[in-house]
Amino acid sequence: MLAQYTLPEMGKVFSSENRYQLMLDVSVIACEALADIGRIPNDAYHEIKTKVAISPQRIKELEAEGCNKSMAFLSSISEKVGDAARYLQLGICYVDIADTVLALQLRQACELLQSKLNQLRKLLSKKAHEYKYTLMMGRTHGTNAEPITFGLKLAIWVREIDRSLTRLNHARMVATHGKMSGPVGTFSSIDPHVETFVCRRLGLHPVFVANQSIQRDRIAEFMSTLAIIGGSLEKFSMEIRNLQRSDIREVEECQKEGQTGSTSMPHKRRPYESEVICGLARILRGNALTSFENQDMWHEYDSSYAAVERISIPDSCIVLDYMLNSFIKLMESLRVYPDMMRQNIDNSLGLVFSQRVMLALMDKGVMRDQAYELVMRNATTAWEQQSDFQFLLLQDKEIRKHMSSREIMDLFDYDCFRKHVDYIFSRGDI
Amino acid sequence: MLAQYTLPEMGKVFSSENRYQLMLDVSVIACEALADIGRIPNDAYHEIKTKVAISPQRIKELEAEGCNKSMAFLSSISEKVGDAARYLQLGICYVDIADTVLALQLRQACELLQSKLNQLRKLLSKKAHEYKYTLMMGRTHGTNAEPITFGLKLAIWVREIDRSLTRLNHARMVATHGKMSGPVGTFSSIDPHVETFVCRRLGLHPVFVANQSIQRDRIAEFMSTLAIIGGSLEKFSMEIRNLQRSDIREVEECQKEGQTGSTSMPHKRRPYESEVICGLARILRGNALTSFENQDMWHEYDSSYAAVERISIPDSCIVLDYMLNSFIKLMESLRVYPDMMRQNIDNSLGLVFSQRVMLALMDKGVMRDQAYELVMRNATTAWEQQSDFQFLLLQDKEIRKHMSSREIMDLFDYDCFRKHVDYIFSRGDI
Amino acid sequence: MLAQYTLPEMGKVFSSENRYQLMLDVSVIACEALADIGRIPNDAYHEIKTKVAISPQRIKELEAEGCNKSMAFLSSISEKVGDAARYLQLGICYVDIADTVLALQLRQACELLQSKLNQLRKLLSKKAHEYKYTLMMGRTHGTNAEPITFGLKLAIWVREIDRSLTRLNHARMVATHGKMSGPVGTFSSIDPHVETFVCRRLGLHPVFVANQSIQRDRIAEFMSTLAIIGGSLEKFSMEIRNLQRSDIREVEECQKEGQTGSTSMPHKRRPYESEVICGLARILRGNALTSFENQDMWHEYDSSYAAVERISIPDSCIVLDYMLNSFIKLMESLRVYPDMMRQNIDNSLGLVFSQRVMLALMDKGVMRDQAYELVMRNATTAWEQQSDFQFLLLQDKEIRKHMSSREIMDLFDYDCFRKHVDYIFSRGDI
Amino acid sequence: MLAQYTLPEMGKVFSSENRYQLMLDVSVIACEALADIGRIPNDAYHEIKTKVAISPQRIKELEAEGCNKSMAFLSSISEKVGDAARYLQLGICYVDIADTVLALQLRQACELLQSKLNQLRKLLSKKAHEYKYTLMMGRTHGTNAEPITFGLKLAIWVREIDRSLTRLNHARMVATHGKMSGPVGTFSSIDPHVETFVCRRLGLHPVFVANQSIQRDRIAEFMSTLAIIGGSLEKFSMEIRNLQRSDIREVEECQKEGQTGSTSMPHKRRPYESEVICGLARILRGNALTSFENQDMWHEYDSSYAAVERISIPDSCIVLDYMLNSFIKLMESLRVYPDMMRQNIDNSLGLVFSQRVMLALMDKGVMRDQAYELVMRNATTAWEQQSDFQFLLLQDKEIRKHMSSREIMDLFDYDCFRKHVDYIFSRGDI
Repeated sequence: MLAQYTLPEMGKVFSSENRYQLMLDVSVIACEALADIGRIPNDAYHEIKTKVAISPQRIKELEAEGCNKSMAFLSSISEKVGDAARYLQLGICYVDIADTVLALQLRQACELLQSKLNQLRKLLSKKAHEYKYTLMMGRTHGTNAEPITFGLKLAIWVREIDRSLTRLNHARMVATHGKMSGPVGTFSSIDPHVETFVCRRLGLHPVFVANQSIQRDRIAEFMSTLAIIGGSLEKFSMEIRNLQRSDIREVEECQKEGQTGSTSMPHKRRPYESEVICGLARILRGNALTSFENQDMWHEYDSSYAAVERISIPDSCIVLDYMLNSFIKLMESLRVYPDMMRQNIDNSLGLVFSQRVMLALMDKGVMRDQAYELVMRNATTAWEQQSDFQFLLLQDKEIRKHMSSREIMDLFDYDCFRKHVDYIFSRGDI
Repeated sequence: MLAQYTLPEMGKVFSSENRYQLMLDVSVIACEALADIGRIPNDAYHEIKTKVAISPQRIKELEAEGCNKSMAFLSSISEKVGDAARYLQLGICYVDIADTVLALQLRQACELLQSKLNQLRKLLSKKAHEYKYTLMMGRTHGTNAEPITFGLKLAIWVREIDRSLTRLNHARMVATHGKMSGPVGTFSSIDPHVETFVCRRLGLHPVFVANQSIQRDRIAEFMSTLAIIGGSLEKFSMEIRNLQRSDIREVEECQKEGQTGSTSMPHKRRPYESEVICGLARILRGNALTSFENQDMWHEYDSSYAAVERISIPDSCIVLDYMLNSFIKLMESLRVYPDMMRQNIDNSLGLVFSQRVMLALMDKGVMRDQAYELVMRNATTAWEQQSDFQFLLLQDKEIRKHMSSREIMDLFDYDCFRKHVDYIFSRGDI
Repeated sequence: MLAQYTLPEMGKVFSSENRYQLMLDVSVIACEALADIGRIPNDAYHEIKTKVAISPQRIKELEAEGCNKSMAFLSSISEKVGDAARYLQLGICYVDIADTVLALQLRQACELLQSKLNQLRKLLSKKAHEYKYTLMMGRTHGTNAEPITFGLKLAIWVREIDRSLTRLNHARMVATHGKMSGPVGTFSSIDPHVETFVCRRLGLHPVFVANQSIQRDRIAEFMSTLAIIGGSLEKFSMEIRNLQRSDIREVEECQKEGQTGSTSMPHKRRPYESEVICGLARILRGNALTSFENQDMWHEYDSSYAAVERISIPDSCIVLDYMLNSFIKLMESLRVYPDMMRQNIDNSLGLVFSQRVMLALMDKGVMRDQAYELVMRNATTAWEQQSDFQFLLLQDKEIRKHMSSREIMDLFDYDCFRKHVDYIFSRGDI
Repeated sequence: MLAQYTLPEMGKVFSSENRYQLMLDVSVIACEALADIGRIPNDAYHEIKTKVAISPQRIKELEAEGCNKSMAFLSSISEKVGDAARYLQLGICYVDIADTVLALQLRQACELLQSKLNQLRKLLSKKAHEYKYTLMMGRTHGTNAEPITFGLKLAIWVREIDRSLTRLNHARMVATHGKMSGPVGTFSSIDPHVETFVCRRLGLHPVFVANQSIQRDRIAEFMSTLAIIGGSLEKFSMEIRNLQRSDIREVEECQKEGQTGSTSMPHKRRPYESEVICGLARILRGNALTSFENQDMWHEYDSSYAAVERISIPDSCIVLDYMLNSFIKLMESLRVYPDMMRQNIDNSLGLVFSQRVMLALMDKGVMRDQAYELVMRNATTAWEQQSDFQFLLLQDKEIRKHMSSREIMDLFDYDCFRKHVDYIFSRGDI
C-alpha cells in the first residue's frame, strides 16, 4: 500500500534483492575471516566466494517447505556451493548476519536521508536570504501579533534541520553496528577475530557486548529521530497550508501543469503535497511508538520485534524519504506573494505597533497597568470598528497628555521589526 | 514489506482492482439514481452502464501527466463512455465515491475478520471443554498462586473474543456508511434521492449529516477496535510463549515438518507464530494512534488523513487477518502436556493450599494476622528448603493446637480448585 | 500537575477518600453475603458493619512499615473491628475488591461525562438551529469551496456527540463489572453466591469468567473511547481557532472580564480554551495507548498495568471532564459574526458558483472536460486578478454560445446552498 | 495521582514554588541586563531586586479574577515593587520567561536523572564483575539456548546505560536553551544584549533564531529520550521478573521486612518493583507521543502544546526518576541464586552443547545438513524422553563413525561459554 510513496533509491535499499545480496556479502566476508585465522581452508573460502549466489526463488520454495527464514537462506546458498558449504556460517547464528545487514541497510538509508536533509537545508537557507527583509504578519494563536520577515520564518526551519542532521547523525552511528558473536553473544564457537575482521571490512563498529542480537534501544533512537524529523516537516507544511488559505494567500504551492483542485469545483485551488506530508508524519509517529515497545526482549533474545521492524523500518525510511523529496520540490517551486503579505499587515490597522506605544508611554512615566489599559482601549475600538489605530491614539486626550502627535507617529515604523534580522541571520549562521 | 503477512482474500479487498471496481460500481449506481429521478436521460445511463470500464493503466498515465487521483479516475472512465460521460458524477465529488467505496471495503474486511473471530471462538470453546478439568498451576506475578484448569484459562479467552465480536460489530456499523451529498455535504447540485438510492442499493446507511467526507471518529473507532483485538491475541500468544518456556513446558506450538529452531543450535525448539503475533499487535496500536490523530479535519475537509489511511487501514486489516489466521492454526495444532501441568503443580510442594490452611485456622478462631503469620512461616521454610508444606504443617505445634492431622490433610485436595468449573462454564456460556 | 484541570466532582471520584470508602462498602457487603449463606455468623457481620472505618492515615503508616497496599488496607480496617475482623475478605483477594471498586468509580465518572455530553448535545443542537440558515464559506483544504450554513457545521458536531454517547455507553457497560471469585478466579475458597450478592447489591454485572482480575480489554475500550471523544472536541476546537483567525474573524471566544491576550501586545485577542482543549486531546491519546499495552497480562495476573492505570485512568477522566466543561462554556458564550461570514463569502468573487456553472454548461450539451476547462479558465482569471467571476463569464464568448446572460445570472443564487438544510436537519434529528 | 511516585527532589523541581522563583530570578536578571545597557535606570533595577517577591496566593487570586497566567504573574510581582515595576519585562513576552525557566527546570531534572543513571551504571558494573563467570542458562525465544554468564547479561545493561547517558546528555543540551527576543522573536522592543546577558548569567545558550517560543522538536527529543531510557529499565525489570518465576528462581527481589505477597495466599512470593517499573515505562511512551504531536505549532506560536507539557514533562521526569531509584534499590538488594542457575543448566540434559557437536562433526567432514540432522535427531529424543544428550550421542552409530567417545565427551565443557568473557568485559569497558 506504500508503493505510491516509494522512491526508487530508498525502495532499492529495502528490496529483498539488496537484503539478500548484503546477507551474502556478509556471509562471504565471514568465511574470509575464518580462512584468515586458519579456521577453514583457504581453498574452501575461494570456492565459496566463487560459487555462492542468491536465488530468491529457491529461498521462497524452501520457506514454503517449512524452513524458517534463516535455514532457507543458508540452505539455498549452500546448494550452490557444494562441498565447501559446510564452512558457511560456522559458529555464527542467523541474527549475526541479519543484524549486521540491517546496519548496512540503515547506513544506506541514512545516506539518502542525510543527503536530502542537506539539500533542504541549503534550499531553505537560500530562500531565507531571498526573503530576509520581506515583511509579513507574525501570528500567534492564529491572530495578528507583530510583523516578522518571511526570511526569519525560514531561518527557524534552517536551524531545525540543523538539529535534525545532528540527531540523525547520532542515531545512525548508534544504529549501525555489526555483530558476529554467535547465538547468545559469547563467541562460544567462533573466534572474536571474525567479528573484528568483518566489521572492519564493512566499515562498521562492532557492538561491544551482545546477546543474540544488538539491543533495540539503538533502533528506538533511530525511529524516534525519524518521527521528530517528520514532525518538523509537518510543522513546515502546516505553515504552508495555513499561509495558502484563501483568507490569507501569502504563499501557494505551485500547481503542476494540468493539475486540478477538485473534480466538482473548477475554481478550486489548494495545497497538495503539504497535506500529504502532514498526514505521513503520523505514520512516523505510529512507527516510533512500535520501536519503543520493541526495546523489550526476553532474556538473550526473542523475535517479536522482528515482525514489527520488517514493516516499520522500511515504511518509516520510505515515508520520510518521500516527505523530504516532496517538501524540497514544494519549496523549490513555492509561489510567494510579498504584496499579499504586506496587505495582510496593512489590514491590521496599525495594531501591530501596540507594544511600542505602550513601552513609549511607560518611558514617559506611565505605569505599566495604566499604559496597557490606555493602549488596549484604543486597540479594541480600532479592531471592533475597523478604524485606524494611529488615528485613534492621536485623538485620545489621555495619551496625548504624555506624547506629542510627532512622537506617536514616529512609533509607526515597520523597520523596528527587521532591525535585528542581520544579527539573527549572522548569529544563526543561516 | 507487508507482503508476507497478506492473505489472499484480505489482499484482494485492498487491491487496486477491487477498489477501482467498487468505484465504478458506485459511479454507475449513482447514474442509475440520476436517471431514476429524470436528472439524466435513461439512455445515457444505459450507455454508461454498458461501456464503462476500468483501466488502471490509463489511470496511472493520467496521474503521471499531473492529474490528481480524482480527475484521473473520472477521465479514465469517461474516455470509455464517450458522449454520455458528461453525466458521470453529476454534482458528486470524488470523496462521495471514495468514502462510499471505503465503506464497502471495510464491510468486506469485517466479514473476513468476523468470520475468523467466530471460527476462533468456536475452536477455543471446544478446547476449553476438552481441558475443562485439566489442572494446571495458576500463576500470578509469574509465581505460583493456586491451581486453575487449562479450560478455565481458555474460557477467559472465549469471553474476550465475544466482547471483540460485539465491538467489531459496532465498529463495522459505525464505519460503513455511504455518502453522496456533494463537495461540502449540502446537496447543492445533487438531489438527496441519489444518496438514498445508492445507499439502499449498496446496503449501506447514509450518513445523516456530512461535509465533504464522513467524519473520522468512525474510522478511529474501527482502528482502535482492531488494536484491542490485536491486544487480546497478543495476550493469548504471550501465554503460549510463557507456557512453552523450557522451564515450564506445559504447551508447545506444533513445529511444521522440516521446521528447525535455529541454524546454529540443532537442539533448539521454540514458539514461532506466537512471537510474530505479539510483535504484530504493536503495528495495530501504532496504526490506531494515527487514526486518533486523523480525527482532526480543517473546516469542511482536508485530505491529510487520506495519506495515512491509505497505508494504515489496509495494513491493520491485513495484519489482524494474518494474526487471527495464524493464531487459529497455532491453537488447532497446539500440543498440550497435562502431565507437565501436573508436575509443575507438584513442584510447588503443596504451597498452593496455603489459603485454605489459613482460612481453616481462622474458622478455628485464630485471628487473621496470626493465621497468616503461621502459614507464611511454614510456607517460607518449605520454599527455601524445598521441603513439603503439609509435612511442615503437621509438625508445627502451634498449628496442631488448632487442627488435627486429619483436618490438615483433608485440606490438601485439588478438587477445591475445580469444584465451580461447571458453574463458571455454564454461566459464561463457554 | 493536573490540579488545574481537576473539577471538583470528578476530582472527588478519584480521591483516595472515595476510593477507600468504596473499598470499605464492598468489603462490608461481601461480609453480608457471607453471613447470608451462613459462612460467617450474623453477629460478626453486624459487628463489622458497625465498627468498620477507614483511616487513610493508618494505611499510610502501614505502607511505610513495608505493608503492600492490599495488606495495609485490610490491616487498617481490621484494627477497628476487633475480633470479627477474621471474617473480613474471607476467600476474597485484594483485586476482587480493587476491580469492583474501579467499576464503581468508572460508573461515577461515566455519569459525569455522560451528563456533560448530553448537555453539550443539547447546546450544540440549539445553536445549530439558531444558525440553521446562516450562510458561511465552506472551506476544503483551507481554501474556498462552496458555502454551507453555520448550522450545518454544528449539526455534524451534534451527530458526532451522539456517536460518542453510544460509544461511551457501551464502554461503560463493558468496563463496569464486578468480580469476587478469589485469587485466580476459581472460587476456590468462596461461594459464588457472594459474587452474585455483592454485584446485585451494587448494581453491577459480574464478570462471567475471570482470573485474578477483570481483563483489561475492557479498560482499553474505555480509554480509547475517551480518546475518540477527545479527538472530537479537538476537531471542534480546532474549528473555533481557525474561524477566529484575524484573517477570518467569523467567530470569537468570549474574553472573560479582565482577560488580556498578551502581556507585551495590548492589542492581542485570541482563543484561549480552544487551544487548551486541542492540547489536552493529546494526553487522552497518550493514555489510550498505555491502555492498549495494558491488555497484556502474564498468566492469571500481573500488576504492571496497575501502576499505569493509577495515573492514566484518573488523568483521562479528569482531562476529558475539563475539556467538556470548558467546551460547553466556550460554546455558550461564543460570539458569532454572520456579517463576517457573509463578507468572506463575498470576498470569493462569486467563484463558489463554479460547480453550478459547469453543470449548467454540461446540461447544455458541453462535454465535462470542456465545461470544466471553460469554467476553470475564468475562475483562474477571477482569482488572480481579483475580478468578479460572473462578470467574466458574461463576457466569455465561448460560454455565451451556450448560455444567455439571464441563465448565467440565475445560477448565482446562494439559496441553492441551503435548500436541503431542512431535510438534513430533519433526517439527522438535530 | 502521581503523588506516590514523586520523590522529593524531583518533586521540588516541578513545584510551583521552584517555578515561580525561577521566573522571578529570570525577570530580575533581565532588569539587570536592561540597566546594564542603560535602557532602565540603575536605581530602578536595584529597587526591583530588593522589593520583588513571589506570592503564589496573589497569583491565584488574580487568575481567579480572569487574568491569564502571564498577566497574573506580572501583576503580582509588580504590586510588590511599586513605581519601578514599569521596568519589569520591558519588551519581553511571557514565553521568553516561561521557556527560559523551563530550560532551567529541565537542567535541574537532568542533573537528578544523570546522577541516578551514573549510580546505576556503577552498580551494574560492580554486579557484572561480581557475576562475571557465573554460568546461567542463556534463553532465546524463552527456551534453552546456550549458557552465558550472569555478568555478561549485566554487561549488556551497563552498555545500554552508557548509551542512555550519551542520549540524555545530548537531549539536555538541546532542550536547555534560553530565549529573550520578544513576542515573535524579532527583538522588536528589546536589545539582543539582554538575551545574551541573561543566558550567560544563567549558564544557558540562547536559541539562535526563535519566534515566540523555542521550537518543540527540542522537547520531543528530550521526551523520547526519557521513553527510551524507560524502555531499557523495562527490559531489565522484565528480565528480573522472568528470572524470578517460580519455575526458574534464579534471582529474587528482596522482600522488605513485613512485606507480604498476597492477602489471600500466605505462601505468595513475588516481584514488586520490577512490575511497577514495567508498567511505568508505558507512561513514558504515552508522553513521548504527545511530545511528537506538540512539535506542530501554528505560525509564530500557539499554546496548545503548553497544556500538554504542563502535565507530561513533570510526569515523565518524576516517573523516570522513580523508576531509576526503584531499580537501583532493587538491584542493590537483589538475591542471586547461582545454584539454581547451575541447576537449570543441568536440567537441559547437555543439549546446550548441540552446536559444538554439530561443528565438530562438520570439522570431521560431515556436510552441514547431515550434521544438523544427526544432532537434531538425538536432541529431540533427549528432550522428549528426558534422557541425557551425551549418552545418546555416544550410542549413536552414525555419529560414532566420525567421532570417538573421547572426542564427544571433550565437547561437553562449560568453559567454552565463558572463555571470551574477559575479552568482552575489557572491550566493553564494563
